[in-house]
Amino acid sequence: MRIRRKPWITQRLENSTIYLKDAKQFKGRWSEYFGNDNEIHIEIGCGKGQFIKGNAIANKNINYIGIEKDAQIIAYAIKKLETENIKNVGLFTGDAKEILEYFTEGEISRVYLNFSDPWRERKKWEKRRLTYRTFIESYKVLLAGKGEIFFKTDNKPLYEFTLNEFAFCDLKMKNITFDLHNSNFVGNIVTEYEEKFSSKGMPIYRVEGHIK
Amino acid sequence: MRIRRKPWITQRLENSTIYLKDAKQFKGRWSEYFGNDNEIHIEIGCGKGQFIKGNAIANKNINYIGIEKDAQIIAYAIKKLETENIKNVGLFTGDAKEILEYFTEGEISRVYLNFSDPWRERKKWEKRRLTYRTFIESYKVLLAGKGEIFFKTDNKPLYEFTLNEFAFCDLKMKNITFDLHNSNFVGNIVTEYEEKFSSKGMPIYRVEGHIK
Repeated sequence: MRIRRKPWITQRLENSTIYLKDAKQFKGRWSEYFGNDNEIHIEIGCGKGQFIKGNAIANKNINYIGIEKDAQIIAYAIKKLETENIKNVGLFTGDAKEILEYFTEGEISRVYLNFSDPWRERKKWEKRRLTYRTFIESYKVLLAGKGEIFFKTDNKPLYEFTLNEFAFCDLKMKNITFDLHNSNFVGNIVTEYEEKFSSKGMPIYRVEGHIK
Repeated sequence: MRIRRKPWITQRLENSTIYLKDAKQFKGRWSEYFGNDNEIHIEIGCGKGQFIKGNAIANKNINYIGIEKDAQIIAYAIKKLETENIKNVGLFTGDAKEILEYFTEGEISRVYLNFSDPWRERKKWEKRRLTYRTFIESYKVLLAGKGEIFFKTDNKPLYEFTLNEFAFCDLKMKNITFDLHNSNFVGNIVTEYEEKFSSKGMPIYRVEGHIK
């Protein structure tokens, strides 16, 4: 079945100033793209952009890059961000497997992973999870000895898996919480998924993995 | 109200060969007590001794020491172990706060904490939890740069707390599992509490904290 792309989506992708059709060209020179030397935080799997929007508004002195596999989905993020005229953001369509083709060593200060696909159906799929050790090692290259990976999910088995992978990769864990919305954690910015799951009373799990 | 000690308990404590009335005298010379240089593992809060009994039978080349605050409870452990004529075990009544008075640096290879009191009622009681950072630091002295702390519980908040404390104290975590009895973990020896809770369908949480 051929899925027809809605016309506004094609148009939004074409005309956007914050959507980067060839993001790889900015590898090593993202500060040029943003026009400043501010820290860069990325969200891998930014979905419809609610999280990155909240962050970009709250922290004008930080640059945010949202990466999403699905161009149809990212069109919603573009719309959301451009409507508010947010400048400290870039978005592109890409795959986490190629993350090292987009950024150079030390170019990134923080990686956000929110409600990533759990890939639970088959054991052999664990390598696809965005917190599998090979992915973490690639994030560590981007972070180059400092910075952190912030992870949250509604999926308990993925969370358990992630804690083990963080430990395996020698990340220093902080703020391990099994119920974010009933914890002392301050300053949480909710994602679209989080809003939905949390309103159903499901706990949100969170952990920070800091590079030592 | 004065609680009358059952006569068999007094008698058992008096006549036992594996119960040590003055355990502090063995600090630095536990290998003399056991008559060999085998590794020594301790369980802090050994209760009625089912866990230590299972371990001692399974691993004859390891020495086990069970510590319990309550002499009435430890009498049951003595009974259980003496009935089976288990020799690679010592038991004493003591408080985890004084653990450094019983063992010298590096004398211990592993610390077990099973179903410890969660001390959840008051925030200020967190310092009493056996996985609070000051306790962990004292275990690290006993372990002297090697070995591990094995922890299991049915109490989710205590588990969450413990993961954070282990991370804080730079223990390398392994085998983080949120449901021990439905995990791949092999060789689990159940405690009395574990048997009870698990049979009610409650998940058992477990983590290992390794000294790096």
